Amino acid sequence: MYRSNTCGELRLSDLNKEVTLSGWVSRIRKMGGMTFIDLRDRYGITQLSFNQEVNQHLCEQANSLGREWVIQVTGTVQERSSKNPRIPTGEIEIIVNKLTVLNASKTPPFTIETDSDGGDELRMKYRYLDLRRDVVRQNLELRHKMALETRHYLDERKFLEVETPVLIGSTPEGARDFIVPSRMNPGQFYALPQSPQLFKQLLMVAGFDRYFQIVKCFRDEDLRADRQPEFTQIDCEMSFVEQDDVLNTFEGLTKHLFKTIKGIDLPPFPRMSYADAMKLYGSDKPDTRFGMTFVELKELTMGREFKVFDSAEYVGAIRVPGCASYTRRQLDELTDFVKRPQIGAQGLIYLRYNEDGTLKSSVDKFYSEEDLRKWAERCDAVPGDLILVLAGETEKTRKQLSELRLEMGSRLGLRDKGRFECLWVVDFPLLEKDEELDRFFAAYDLVINGVEIGGGSIRIHDSQLQSKMFSVLGFTEERAQEQFGFLMNAFRYGAPPHGGIAFGLDRFVSIFAGLESIRDTIAFPKNTAGRDVMIDAPSSVEEEQLDELGIQLKPRGGTH
Amino acid sequence: MYRSNTCGELRLSDLNKEVTLSGWVSRIRKMGGMTFIDLRDRYGITQLSFNQEVNQHLCEQANSLGREWVIQVTGTVQERSSKNPRIPTGEIEIIVNKLTVLNASKTPPFTIETDSDGGDELRMKYRYLDLRRDVVRQNLELRHKMALETRHYLDERKFLEVETPVLIGSTPEGARDFIVPSRMNPGQFYALPQSPQLFKQLLMVAGFDRYFQIVKCFRDEDLRADRQPEFTQIDCEMSFVEQDDVLNTFEGLTKHLFKTIKGIDLPPFPRMSYADAMKLYGSDKPDTRFGMTFVELKELTMGREFKVFDSAEYVGAIRVPGCASYTRRQLDELTDFVKRPQIGAQGLIYLRYNEDGTLKSSVDKFYSEEDLRKWAERCDAVPGDLILVLAGETEKTRKQLSELRLEMGSRLGLRDKGRFECLWVVDFPLLEKDEELDRFFAAYDLVINGVEIGGGSIRIHDSQLQSKMFSVLGFTEERAQEQFGFLMNAFRYGAPPHGGIAFGLDRFVSIFAGLESIRDTIAFPKNTAGRDVMIDAPSSVEEEQLDELGIQLKPRGGTH
Repeated sequence: MYRSNTCGELRLSDLNKEVTLSGWVSRIRKMGGMTFIDLRDRYGITQLSFNQEVNQHLCEQANSLGREWVIQVTGTVQERSSKNPRIPTGEIEIIVNKLTVLNASKTPPFTIETDSDGGDELRMKYRYLDLRRDVVRQNLELRHKMALETRHYLDERKFLEVETPVLIGSTPEGARDFIVPSRMNPGQFYALPQSPQLFKQLLMVAGFDRYFQIVKCFRDEDLRADRQPEFTQIDCEMSFVEQDDVLNTFEGLTKHLFKTIKGIDLPPFPRMSYADAMKLYGSDKPDTRFGMTFVELKELTMGREFKVFDSAEYVGAIRVPGCASYTRRQLDELTDFVKRPQIGAQGLIYLRYNEDGTLKSSVDKFYSEEDLRKWAERCDAVPGDLILVLAGETEKTRKQLSELRLEMGSRLGLRDKGRFECLWVVDFPLLEKDEELDRFFAAYDLVINGVEIGGGSIRIHDSQLQSKMFSVLGFTEERAQEQFGFLMNAFRYGAPPHGGIAFGLDRFVSIFAGLESIRDTIAFPKNTAGRDVMIDAPSSVEEEQLDELGIQLKPRGGTH
Repeated sequence: MYRSNTCGELRLSDLNKEVTLSGWVSRIRKMGGMTFIDLRDRYGITQLSFNQEVNQHLCEQANSLGREWVIQVTGTVQERSSKNPRIPTGEIEIIVNKLTVLNASKTPPFTIETDSDGGDELRMKYRYLDLRRDVVRQNLELRHKMALETRHYLDERKFLEVETPVLIGSTPEGARDFIVPSRMNPGQFYALPQSPQLFKQLLMVAGFDRYFQIVKCFRDEDLRADRQPEFTQIDCEMSFVEQDDVLNTFEGLTKHLFKTIKGIDLPPFPRMSYADAMKLYGSDKPDTRFGMTFVELKELTMGREFKVFDSAEYVGAIRVPGCASYTRRQLDELTDFVKRPQIGAQGLIYLRYNEDGTLKSSVDKFYSEEDLRKWAERCDAVPGDLILVLAGETEKTRKQLSELRLEMGSRLGLRDKGRFECLWVVDFPLLEKDEELDRFFAAYDLVINGVEIGGGSIRIHDSQLQSKMFSVLGFTEERAQEQFGFLMNAFRYGAPPHGGIAFGLDRFVSIFAGLESIRDTIAFPKNTAGRDVMIDAPSSVEEEQLDELGIQLKPRGGTH
């Protein structure tokens, strides 16, 4: 038996018990004739105590240990003279009477502490040591809990978790598919799924009624954004449902996760149309932790000889509370911000509604105080507010104004990671070309704090309607048959009405954990070049192996 | 709203309720002026009733429906005049007042019944229709439950489910690896994991303490046996454990599954050494639902001029209860059975212990009645028993005798699928060459009803011991470094003692379901050629796609 207890569980109530613990040497401190070791495992830290006078040999043995050595100790639980209230075991220590080294350790390349001294690259290379840090492991414990609670919740609602295949067929449009050569069928390839979409719809045709799966998906594409070539989805589908059924079910799931894992009771999620989201926030995934919704000023700005506004398709403003006192330099900074190439605005107009009630704008040579007062009224501004205005082509300008809004939210501390605002964005225009068809669609996204966590739609289950859609989308009949023929054929055998949703688990966990990136929600992530730097993959393979698969490397610089 | 109830839930207590149901038309029966439809969904079947006299139009509409059409009906729950006790809804029917066709269906290529008229190939091609059959879907419901209960059990015991990567590195020995070309790293390949072994051991180095994962693994090999190129493992690893800790934990899991899912309380699992399993059953996965253990007769058979036995390394017998009355023809059949090339015995010797106490053997010209009586005594035989004897080289003969034993068990009906005998086979000789090293190993298998369900070992966590093992196994230092260097290096940073186990989920489910094959535990399985005949994968891909990956097909018949 390697241990009677873990390093996280002993308390004052265990006083005088003889216990055996195993774990890693986290810290060694010598004080006078005493040596103290913080022994660490996943469950916590327990202080070990060695007294030179009582047992010199044992104390010397303790002094010879190094950081991250794996040891086993036996001893007696005793009350500490100097207690540590910051850890649950902080009232006790172990008076050790036996110490066994289970494994030595080289000095780790960085410290195993909450704030490590290791850089990103080094920590990724030694990920198995990085994972020893509480802050990293806790993300994976959270992920475990979220996945488990998701399964509980869906199981209780009669969803069946069904594993769909990982080795599937490559489709002509599957440009971002990873492909896998088959040894048994040389010259032929499987593909890895970008999603189990086809199979979950087939399960609906099969009458499975309610399906889910927490499943790895794959996409071979540039990873500049915060993406991974393999990612995990909570993938769900339901039969005999309308949009409300799907939204209510998965709002329930989301609330359940917040409640059971974070202890947060969320109110009903607002539902906002895609059109309103674009109009009010310039984004299909608005961060609704704060207001600053867009105000359209176009017709208030016309006919004053200010060409920028007169020629603009769209003039939009946000009201920034309490920022009338922004200095010229701060306003210049904001102008630089919106003019950055990633945002691309031509310039920024401001209107200060000063505390004394006066108005001051960068365009007051074009607009009278009366004009400006109308802007302020339209914005519901009060003294002390700053109004920021962008103008130009509608779609672009809304996007720019959205970036500015988020920047101001961050500057004002309105984007608290500990607050969670959930929102359904509904009525996505899947087919802007065809109003008649659009009626049959219902597509929706779940957005939390401005991050898209999930999305889905009510599917077309009627093969005739589906054919029509493909022709509207510009597919020839042959091409539609080639790409979707299999599913359309399956739909001819009694497909039920159905719809579903898929959540990005990595992103969901990162929101719960308050992380900027999904990387630390994953035990062994890849870098932006799709490489696992720890195991050094991908790598070259031996020619014999390619031979067996009926493939060979293309000569460098070769063309076809 | 598509339905107020499912097709499985209405009872007499719902009498006179107005309900809406949706589902598939399973059967249509016309009787006099009445039409009855069995409406089916995942949850059950409800009878719909249409009366020509009450509503001729509606009844005609019902008569025009076809098998597997998807319909929605509204009507009133009424007590049936002729009840059907075989289904839970058999006491009621729905008097329909509204019928909507949600989707028509072509006539399915086979009947959607427990006993379908469709052949294997047809049912695999239309797997989405095959999955509509209760008997198929129930296997997947069972699989869902087993996975969920496994997660409950392990979570309660502090195991963390951690997702390990699917895109990993190919290793030189990975001959059966599927490989995946990387677009971002042309000419380089990922591999799909045959197991998460490396990563779960790294998680132990990382201090995760208790890990599990229900995870897809991949092996590109011949599938003649009942195997699939992608299969699912319940993969587990624990730190600071000895063999007993692992065995007790997973015996607990196995009992929990039998208890919660099948309502069966299992006694403690016997533990048998590999050596005993070979000696008593000729197999490392003995079916212990019945006895017929091997009896060694070698020294009783010596020196009677019977060359077959005299020259044999091993003479072994099984006692088959109550089969002394086997006819000559039946015994010839058994002889033919053991002489089949798959078994390969030279012949079969029998000894009948007749009901009248006399003995009759195929070799009684060599052996006296006294000799034969000693055999019978050694076998604990009683009048009425048949003793079957095989002789030859020890290992081969035991294997042959094992096949004969299983055959006799089947013939005597001793291999009841509803009975479950679990067994730990322990002390597998991993390294027969080196006794000293062997002491450090502990490898074990869980066997249920003669099927290996899981296996694992206590790992070597000491990198020096590991190096020694590699040299004993015949690896040069370079080769060991190349293949295992990464893990050995990780072990230098404080690896804890650890061990684990992996269960084959597909096989585990098939045992619970009483299936011969794992195929029907999988929603979308592949055939023995590794093909998904439903979606027709694998298939060829376009040249542009290969170009981007830096590979090309090898010219047919090309060599290097």
